[in-house]
Amino acid sequence: MTRENPEKKAIFLRKIDLAEKKLSTANYKGTRDFYPEDMQLRNWMFEIMKKVVISYGYREYDGPILESLDIYKAKSGQEIVDKQLYDFIDKGERHVAIRPEMTPTLARMVAGRARDLPRPIRWFSLPNLWRYEAPGHGRLREHWQLNVDIFGVNSVNAEIEIISLACDILFAFNAPKDSFRVKFSHRGILSSFLRNTLSLLPEKEEAVAKILDKKNKVTQEEFESSLLDLLPNPTDQLKLIDQYLNSNIDTVLQISGIPEEPVIYIQEFYDKIKILGISESVEFDPSIIRGFDYYTGFIFEIFDTNKQNKRSLYGGGRYDNLIGLFSNEELSGIGFGLGDVTLENFLKTHNLIPEFNRDSSVYLTLMNNALFSDILLLARELRREGIDTEINLDGNQKLGKQISIAEKKGYRYLLVLGEDEIKDNNVILKDLKESNQKIISKNQLMIDLKLVLGI
Amino acid sequence: MTRENPEKKAIFLRKIDLAEKKLSTANYKGTRDFYPEDMQLRNWMFEIMKKVVISYGYREYDGPILESLDIYKAKSGQEIVDKQLYDFIDKGERHVAIRPEMTPTLARMVAGRARDLPRPIRWFSLPNLWRYEAPGHGRLREHWQLNVDIFGVNSVNAEIEIISLACDILFAFNAPKDSFRVKFSHRGILSSFLRNTLSLLPEKEEAVAKILDKKNKVTQEEFESSLLDLLPNPTDQLKLIDQYLNSNIDTVLQISGIPEEPVIYIQEFYDKIKILGISESVEFDPSIIRGFDYYTGFIFEIFDTNKQNKRSLYGGGRYDNLIGLFSNEELSGIGFGLGDVTLENFLKTHNLIPEFNRDSSVYLTLMNNALFSDILLLARELRREGIDTEINLDGNQKLGKQISIAEKKGYRYLLVLGEDEIKDNNVILKDLKESNQKIISKNQLMIDLKLVLGI
Repeated sequence: MTRENPEKKAIFLRKIDLAEKKLSTANYKGTRDFYPEDMQLRNWMFEIMKKVVISYGYREYDGPILESLDIYKAKSGQEIVDKQLYDFIDKGERHVAIRPEMTPTLARMVAGRARDLPRPIRWFSLPNLWRYEAPGHGRLREHWQLNVDIFGVNSVNAEIEIISLACDILFAFNAPKDSFRVKFSHRGILSSFLRNTLSLLPEKEEAVAKILDKKNKVTQEEFESSLLDLLPNPTDQLKLIDQYLNSNIDTVLQISGIPEEPVIYIQEFYDKIKILGISESVEFDPSIIRGFDYYTGFIFEIFDTNKQNKRSLYGGGRYDNLIGLFSNEELSGIGFGLGDVTLENFLKTHNLIPEFNRDSSVYLTLMNNALFSDILLLARELRREGIDTEINLDGNQKLGKQISIAEKKGYRYLLVLGEDEIKDNNVILKDLKESNQKIISKNQLMIDLKLVLGI
Repeated sequence: MTRENPEKKAIFLRKIDLAEKKLSTANYKGTRDFYPEDMQLRNWMFEIMKKVVISYGYREYDGPILESLDIYKAKSGQEIVDKQLYDFIDKGERHVAIRPEMTPTLARMVAGRARDLPRPIRWFSLPNLWRYEAPGHGRLREHWQLNVDIFGVNSVNAEIEIISLACDILFAFNAPKDSFRVKFSHRGILSSFLRNTLSLLPEKEEAVAKILDKKNKVTQEEFESSLLDLLPNPTDQLKLIDQYLNSNIDTVLQISGIPEEPVIYIQEFYDKIKILGISESVEFDPSIIRGFDYYTGFIFEIFDTNKQNKRSLYGGGRYDNLIGLFSNEELSGIGFGLGDVTLENFLKTHNLIPEFNRDSSVYLTLMNNALFSDILLLARELRREGIDTEINLDGNQKLGKQISIAEKKGYRYLLVLGEDEIKDNNVILKDLKESNQKIISKNQLMIDLKLVLGI
């Protein structure tokens, strides 16, 4: 038996108590804290995406993160509503949900002003979206997603613009042509195949489509056995499925039951996409399914060609009755979503993320507190000239300490304005990377700094 | 009795049924849909704010919109947690809330890396925040708020930087010097007044502070009667309160029980702020309270001087133990929040919002569908030169129709590349505002366009 020391035990317990009172610094599961270096990456990605989309004349919109549950019940898939939605009753008894996707909000907003908006409507957004999922590679509970949509163009020219834009986003990140592939299909072809070729009952179509969608994730045996129960005549029908999945844009019409119209549409798409010089990266792939909700025509996904990163980067397609839930107007649209997590994985896989630095701004030291006014006024002058300037606020710190702070903060350029410099109307400009410095007149400072900082 | 026509009635009921099936296009109460023109305003405001904050060396961060309820229970006021929080239980039985303010997330994130972050820590964020409130002027359920904080500077130099930055944001919007006033006080002065001068019990302090905070919103009678129950000796104490509220930076020390230290601190602040040339807009105001939560030192608010817009624009101050909830580290910080709704009201009141147009981009017509390739390639060239270009995708539309679309979309400049132009290697550039046009060679186009668009 160990002899207890009651006083020590009390102190020990008090310490535990105190320690336990501290709240966890962990963020909510499946989300990310964006520390400045993470935010810099996010902002960099967003700015490049926005620049490309704006260069096509698209305009940004946004909606509230909370919407009435009804719009997801009606528009999103059943799996999302039942298992993945962050829904709750608000203090006014309204059943609301945090948006799991942007499309229902988009449809609501477009429907609200469908008659007034000049067409075609070209809109984009960069919302954060929430799904209750088991977090994994490329899948988080909160992620951001670029949403790009064009409404009011019935011709394939809209598909060409959307694919051109989607590829230009990747090119803007310096992605090589062979780093991705655009795979497309058409809902009209898929539906006809399920209904006419396989003669499936409508209630079986969705189940079979889901299995086709996941074909690449399972073995051939698993694939076939999962279909057996759904097919009335498996032996013949598995052959037809094989023929369908192995068809190309020229042979798909040979399958009985496939109508001409959607095939001609995608052939026109394929002919026109050649203008962009990327046709070798674009292919018809009848296994492209895109869930089973609002798409009605052309559908596509863009994949990373690196096998390490198998998830599709983009998904999108044409929908003909998206605003019908809110309005009697009819308006055909085509759009896509590009998630920040999948994009970041793509950029990492291909080494396309640059190193971020603070080489275009300066750190201004404070040699003693009596010089604070001078430093403050110099900082103001610098900022007015467009030079971002962080000031050291503690004049009791030695120069070495201040240099070390500037280095830790990632600065390359440092300014020193001590008493001697003020007397002579000079400033010392230090390059911490090259370990050199020069004394320049205050008049010369702005000119030299802008050159050095590349402003 | 009216004779019923069963068939007509059935059609009528079916129509009602169809009509009723349409979901409302209204957004959730107390929130805003940002249509492109609203988003343009929001982006313009955010960009100016960010530019100023970044020019001071602050770095952007962000956190998830959902946090554990615990951090608000511990950090936010009781009123927020009980009445204004959007909290719910997630599918994994975690009690979570949509952030009503950013400070608890900030404290959690800083505490998580307190030892590694180079100090001073200068951070900002632009989160959307949610409170369940009755929507009213300047008050919505979802709003955005610029949050700016600096940690690790104990001297008044941090206050100077923060006030300088706050004012520079308004100046960046071209706000005149007399359009706003900075009112400041110090928690040490307020607490001493309540505790030492009025000899209030700790549990009464908060109630009295709340009444002082709202003094300007009630009549003198209402003000005094609401205090009667809380003051042990109302006759004398109401006089002291009057003396306190009418004191200035030089006379506040004459009130018995007010300690020297905080008064010297704010006097130093007031002396130094003169450097910035804005001291006539800055005043000590002992009625500044700032709720009763984490502030421990200097506190301030910035008000619109226009009486139409009474709400304070900014609120902020110094807190000495904000991260103590998560960590044993001690770190003094000072920060403020500036809401987008109050800022927008301020800018509107003072006519500081410019007209937005699309005069720096072009609309490219499509004279017939056979020219789509030429148009697509010209658009690509233009975009590569940094010229935002929206294409007309319907070659069946007459030129007049296309011009009218461009005008509705707000474009001033329009390009026509018809068959004749292609043959002669020319392009027509139309100025829709001046109703003129010129034919220029394709080679000259980029140079002329950049001049005209101001790129």
